[in-house]
Amino acid sequence: MNATTLEDDGWTVAGRRFRSRLVVGTGRYKSLEETAASIAASGAEMVTVAVRRVNLSDPNAPMLQDFVPPTQYTYLPNTAGCHTAQDAVRTLRLAREAGGWNLVKLEVLGPPPFLYPDMAATFEAASALLADNFEVMVYCADDPVAAKRLEEMGCVAIMPLGAPIGSGMGVVNPYMIRAIKAQAKVPVLVDAGIGTASEAAFAMELGCDAVLLNSAIAHAQDPVRMAAAMKHAVIAGRHAYLAGRMPRDYRADPSSPTTGTIR
Amino acid sequence: MNATTLEDDGWTVAGRRFRSRLVVGTGRYKSLEETAASIAASGAEMVTVAVRRVNLSDPNAPMLQDFVPPTQYTYLPNTAGCHTAQDAVRTLRLAREAGGWNLVKLEVLGPPPFLYPDMAATFEAASALLADNFEVMVYCADDPVAAKRLEEMGCVAIMPLGAPIGSGMGVVNPYMIRAIKAQAKVPVLVDAGIGTASEAAFAMELGCDAVLLNSAIAHAQDPVRMAAAMKHAVIAGRHAYLAGRMPRDYRADPSSPTTGTIR
Amino acid sequence: MNATTLEDDGWTVAGRRFRSRLVVGTGRYKSLEETAASIAASGAEMVTVAVRRVNLSDPNAPMLQDFVPPTQYTYLPNTAGCHTAQDAVRTLRLAREAGGWNLVKLEVLGPPPFLYPDMAATFEAASALLADNFEVMVYCADDPVAAKRLEEMGCVAIMPLGAPIGSGMGVVNPYMIRAIKAQAKVPVLVDAGIGTASEAAFAMELGCDAVLLNSAIAHAQDPVRMAAAMKHAVIAGRHAYLAGRMPRDYRADPSSPTTGTIR
Amino acid sequence: MNATTLEDDGWTVAGRRFRSRLVVGTGRYKSLEETAASIAASGAEMVTVAVRRVNLSDPNAPMLQDFVPPTQYTYLPNTAGCHTAQDAVRTLRLAREAGGWNLVKLEVLGPPPFLYPDMAATFEAASALLADNFEVMVYCADDPVAAKRLEEMGCVAIMPLGAPIGSGMGVVNPYMIRAIKAQAKVPVLVDAGIGTASEAAFAMELGCDAVLLNSAIAHAQDPVRMAAAMKHAVIAGRHAYLAGRMPRDYRADPSSPTTGTIR
Repeated sequence: MNATTLEDDGWTVAGRRFRSRLVVGTGRYKSLEETAASIAASGAEMVTVAVRRVNLSDPNAPMLQDFVPPTQYTYLPNTAGCHTAQDAVRTLRLAREAGGWNLVKLEVLGPPPFLYPDMAATFEAASALLADNFEVMVYCADDPVAAKRLEEMGCVAIMPLGAPIGSGMGVVNPYMIRAIKAQAKVPVLVDAGIGTASEAAFAMELGCDAVLLNSAIAHAQDPVRMAAAMKHAVIAGRHAYLAGRMPRDYRADPSSPTTGTIR
Repeated sequence: MNATTLEDDGWTVAGRRFRSRLVVGTGRYKSLEETAASIAASGAEMVTVAVRRVNLSDPNAPMLQDFVPPTQYTYLPNTAGCHTAQDAVRTLRLAREAGGWNLVKLEVLGPPPFLYPDMAATFEAASALLADNFEVMVYCADDPVAAKRLEEMGCVAIMPLGAPIGSGMGVVNPYMIRAIKAQAKVPVLVDAGIGTASEAAFAMELGCDAVLLNSAIAHAQDPVRMAAAMKHAVIAGRHAYLAGRMPRDYRADPSSPTTGTIR
Repeated sequence: MNATTLEDDGWTVAGRRFRSRLVVGTGRYKSLEETAASIAASGAEMVTVAVRRVNLSDPNAPMLQDFVPPTQYTYLPNTAGCHTAQDAVRTLRLAREAGGWNLVKLEVLGPPPFLYPDMAATFEAASALLADNFEVMVYCADDPVAAKRLEEMGCVAIMPLGAPIGSGMGVVNPYMIRAIKAQAKVPVLVDAGIGTASEAAFAMELGCDAVLLNSAIAHAQDPVRMAAAMKHAVIAGRHAYLAGRMPRDYRADPSSPTTGTIR
Repeated sequence: MNATTLEDDGWTVAGRRFRSRLVVGTGRYKSLEETAASIAASGAEMVTVAVRRVNLSDPNAPMLQDFVPPTQYTYLPNTAGCHTAQDAVRTLRLAREAGGWNLVKLEVLGPPPFLYPDMAATFEAASALLADNFEVMVYCADDPVAAKRLEEMGCVAIMPLGAPIGSGMGVVNPYMIRAIKAQAKVPVLVDAGIGTASEAAFAMELGCDAVLLNSAIAHAQDPVRMAAAMKHAVIAGRHAYLAGRMPRDYRADPSSPTTGTIR
């Protein structure tokens, strides 16, 4: 290859093209200033917004839009805080009325302390949203059967967890992420669980189209610097995936009965 | 922090300052053109050269210097192919006479198939080289006692393996790399074992000063692209280390009796 | 503790008491003789039977019952080979009519090559079987929300996968197995994925009540010896869980920001 | 195979035959009563004794021999607490004079907090002890070059660490343990690092001849029960090794470029 083809020409979801393969959240920061600086450092072009938690409409209080301009970033409203299908659907309908957002992130979580995706409620909400002409990017378990079904229903992106939200445990089951990607015709993003740069790179090396994260940046000791780290990590992991890594081969036992392991 | 302080001001070894924290090898490529293109894409400023294997002196054959200009890159002669202290010392003396190189990489390997560092021979060679006023960057086992002793002898950088040369197994024992770094006053580089971008980032997240690799680039299916991946990976890992990652915390069992584990 | 209390008094499912915490399959062996010898060596008291694949009723062909006497082992009919809820329900109804078995193992798998549990179909089948007064031990994803719901519906045991059937990948996501166990009031068994003895012990150390496996024994080079290995592994893991392991503590970095990691 | 051949006929070191593949320490317990009960539950036939820390000779104080009879157990004096070759050699000479013990365990540790083997001092001490006709079982780094050299010098068993003493981190680098075993003609024991039963089983599955541990039992919440767990774990791991495990094969990506990985 030459320098020209070294570019990565980005990815497409719901007809929208993005060069950055990093999608970031807008919550959990100390201030809106820190939010803005971190997102700028991340290079993200798409940001998710917890419409129940962020001020998007009251001009008498600081509004996210003043710091993270919707003219510059694609807003992806999400349903953080919704624990039923009804809540999730209602939340996104209100968001669409308020801001015109049609491309959305659906997440319906089970109860604390695990906050694992509630897949039955997720299917129910996805069905209602798709019937209502939303373009649905869907957060889900690392379950390839469920993932395929969500795609067949019409979801525009499949977003399996690396680990539960806020856990920072990384991509615990890379086999399932790879299985989901192997069969998908829509973009696959690892969403949740990423805690540091090497984990974001690893998610990309599995072949994912992009990575979505929030706490890894917002809860780092220096969020802006971690945002820069994540920007480079996602580029690194994408290039490494495209480049095709060297074989792992420890000569002490080349005949080891192992196929298809990842680490 | 602000955009100004987001910079990483690099590292110093033997009084030389480098901005890039990636050191790459010059062997195992298909051609000298591929070598040059890959090194350029990696952003490396220091390159290691197996003086027994690379043509550095015969103007009638293609010379490495014509493709990787010593005016542009710091050459670090190494002792690849040497299995005794005597061989290693002799090799580096010849290299110094030929090219004036005083900053060198010492490696003395045990026999195949493991090619693990021969630490007794490494100590013997380091002692002779230091007595002869070489500046020695030393490849070694992930052994914190040996690492400290090599530093106390006067080695200018400690370079423990992540895994054996050419294995691509990654950083198998991150605890020992961290232990070596914790006590070192000279730079610590992970040298050998890195197979892909996330592993390079992980090495940097352990606090290492730099990473040295060769096969991961040269044996990738697309070496130039993998070189670009590694460039970003090392930047990502360094920023992540400086940024201070979020805690790992899986709420299912916050009282788990675990301290100090790394993944 | 003293020698008396060193005993493990076993576990109870659906009112039946078992001393052995190892449940084994009866398929994939070279012969019924090997099946019988392996099961004997495993010490298992409960065996699962793929009623679609094993001859349970034709006296003109070798019958499982002649080798693995139902008077000695608790038979647990399973739905291996069923890919729809209807198939699974029909299969278990026929089994009950034929053999009177009311305690059953439900599994409904998605398509090859992944053979991951089809959770929507599993819920549908579980609902029908429970309404029909079956006692349902249910194979499922490592999804704590789904697991809790299956328990609330009335399933008598929750059996999350360690990894897909026949993969031998071990317990890939120990966090979720532990989460499922933490909230369960019925027995939790790791079912599928176990490949060797240390993995069975590890599953038990997570607090599971028992382990279910088949390929790990049947596909070992020496099934009878592997059955013996598994017998000891399950005992070892159970005692280790009850004994409370020493803390992991690597002093190189006692302040590492890590909570709740398992390995 | 049949029930007869299911036996494991044990291992031999320095001409002595042992059925149990578990060697345990005698320190770190709350009382000598607990020491004795734990060792009995472990099934061990060989016990290591820190001759600097345990009362072996003062009849006015409780003596280890009264609780762990040397007529029943093979005592293996060790050099715990020695940080120089001279100290280690002197300690074992005194032990031999006092108790006649000729088969010994040599360990020379570097400084806290890492307590990693000091390999240079270990070689020096091994040389002196072998010259003095000791039979030396030697604790060492997971370094296959050093391990081979210790064997060639005449050590009767090679005992690489799984992880530093008292860390409970398990077998961190299984590749090197397997490499050491692959080339050894004397017994190889994993010594140090084992924290729980599955880790002991895993060490045995790598092909090791035996496992040596102390803290894993003594620092468990219930030492006697953990001792029983370890007894079963070592048997499980040995049988699993001999049985030949099923292949790992995750069908999502059978062409993954991976050879020789262990987990």
